[in-house]
Amino acid sequence: MSGIADVARAAGVSKSTASRALTGRGYVSEHTRSRVRDAAERLGYVASTNAASLVTGRTHNIALIVPRVNRWYFGSVIEGVERSLISAGFDLTLFVAEPDSRDRESLYAHFLARKRFDGVLAVALEPDDDDIERLRDYGKPFLHIGNELPGITTLGVDNFVIGRMMTEHLLTLGHTDIAFLGRTPPSEPSARDVDDRSAGYLAAMTEAGLAGSARLEPATLTLPDGYAAAASLLADRTSRPSGIVAACDEIGIGTIIAARRLGIAVPAQLSVVAVDGHDYADMFTLTTIEQDPAAQGEEAVRLLLEQIAGADARPVRHSAPARLVVRASTAPPAHTLAAV
Amino acid sequence: MSGIADVARAAGVSKSTASRALTGRGYVSEHTRSRVRDAAERLGYVASTNAASLVTGRTHNIALIVPRVNRWYFGSVIEGVERSLISAGFDLTLFVAEPDSRDRESLYAHFLARKRFDGVLAVALEPDDDDIERLRDYGKPFLHIGNELPGITTLGVDNFVIGRMMTEHLLTLGHTDIAFLGRTPPSEPSARDVDDRSAGYLAAMTEAGLAGSARLEPATLTLPDGYAAAASLLADRTSRPSGIVAACDEIGIGTIIAARRLGIAVPAQLSVVAVDGHDYADMFTLTTIEQDPAAQGEEAVRLLLEQIAGADARPVRHSAPARLVVRASTAPPAHTLAAV
Repeated sequence: MSGIADVARAAGVSKSTASRALTGRGYVSEHTRSRVRDAAERLGYVASTNAASLVTGRTHNIALIVPRVNRWYFGSVIEGVERSLISAGFDLTLFVAEPDSRDRESLYAHFLARKRFDGVLAVALEPDDDDIERLRDYGKPFLHIGNELPGITTLGVDNFVIGRMMTEHLLTLGHTDIAFLGRTPPSEPSARDVDDRSAGYLAAMTEAGLAGSARLEPATLTLPDGYAAAASLLADRTSRPSGIVAACDEIGIGTIIAARRLGIAVPAQLSVVAVDGHDYADMFTLTTIEQDPAAQGEEAVRLLLEQIAGADARPVRHSAPARLVVRASTAPPAHTLAAV
Repeated sequence: MSGIADVARAAGVSKSTASRALTGRGYVSEHTRSRVRDAAERLGYVASTNAASLVTGRTHNIALIVPRVNRWYFGSVIEGVERSLISAGFDLTLFVAEPDSRDRESLYAHFLARKRFDGVLAVALEPDDDDIERLRDYGKPFLHIGNELPGITTLGVDNFVIGRMMTEHLLTLGHTDIAFLGRTPPSEPSARDVDDRSAGYLAAMTEAGLAGSARLEPATLTLPDGYAAAASLLADRTSRPSGIVAACDEIGIGTIIAARRLGIAVPAQLSVVAVDGHDYADMFTLTTIEQDPAAQGEEAVRLLLEQIAGADARPVRHSAPARLVVRASTAPPAHTLAAV
């Protein structure tokens, strides 16, 4: 098998330049890097990463911790993270740890303890104070995609602002009877993003002088649960709101499906606004605040690799963009009909 | 930091027993294993995996290759694989390679070439002959979740049988005008699972003497695309089939939504049968052939770890179970109405 010296000779560069070009550590021009990579590929050169990592202390391996894989938001983040890591020459090691599960303990005691990683990304970790302490002390670059956390670098949308934006969209259209659908049920572990969205809703309702009619209805963040919760909320004509602020697009879409089955016209009799930018939002003409989780994954990788390369590691909050996309699920309320 | 000798002493076993208990290599009783693990945890013992793997040649790391993350089937497989690997003390390194993409080349040239893994799992890889050659020569235990492949151990459902089962369900109910919705559009890379399902449909139609009325309509395997394709297929009343065999649940659900929007009653005017057992199937009362991708992921890990532990590695086809779950999306055709 060819060694690094063969690659250097074939590319016409020094051994140390060839090594820098292949490992990504230290500066090499793009032109030289591609020449060295071509030579390495031609010669079938493959670095022995285990041996190399004992010498350099680098593993070219990043840990990604997510609470679930099989939900649109997490799946999209994983795809963005994977794409960026692979193109930067890093491997992605995946760990799934639901909040309040036994996996959480194993995360610290086994998975992270072996220090196999150059850095760690976590999504929606919902850490308690003890978790935050352990993560701060971990001693490797760490970035959290989700809420702001004390002493930790984070990247995410502002969920309080999003909750307010959704509600203000309905208020501006003239709605006054607006329910928030998707507060965390008491049986589930609490979720900061949802809490912040509902707090934004409450703030907007309060500022509009509608605090008395605000309601937070429970539902977990899935389409079937959103459907079931909406079906029960909408079934009683006398207490039916004219507008629903959904905690995520899955709940918003479940609400639209439930309304159709109950013969409630959207948006003529019911407006629905949600947040995410789910793949299905367009098909259900759902008005939503779009965030881009795959882009968040890519940006998180960029920031983490900067830290690994030695950039200033002081904890920062990086804000991810979100924008209102108005579709046909929201309109002014049918006051005249409702008043009959 | 505590060494393996400290752990062995605390657990009252020999060093080699302690090592076997912690690495999972060689036999140790469940009782001893748990005593050693408790001692290791108490002492904060963490194996240095990089150094250990240079000695043993083992990395305790499994590669999982998937074409996508953000689809129900793949997300479920990943969750099953991850759960099983973590509980067996292995890490999961994820690689996303869509068919016919540039990632595919990088998969062999970089990701697998470094031999970081004790074994490799791949899902729905759709390999060409060249891929199969490379995988057979890879020299590490390998298992494919999906179609049968020559010379490679595989695990999966029988998609031909599934296509036939779906079609026979509608034939038995009395349908004769049955379309298959979801053949791969010409612009997409071909997919063996879909081809096998449509071949099963064609076989059942042919055996029923209905080869002449068989139709394969294109759609990619997503809910929005299934919705759009069904909307266009169902729009023309004169050519509308009475039954649809959908290539997956997402297409089946998209079809039900399209039918509702067009005012077509399911199942009175249109029966829909699909395959998967998607989270949304129950909510849409979809008759489907259920497979369990998370269980397939778990079973694949079990089989791969057996190979890694030295079991007979001759290529075998392992068959995964699938069963018909009848819900309210299928019923006998409304012949009398259709005949008017």
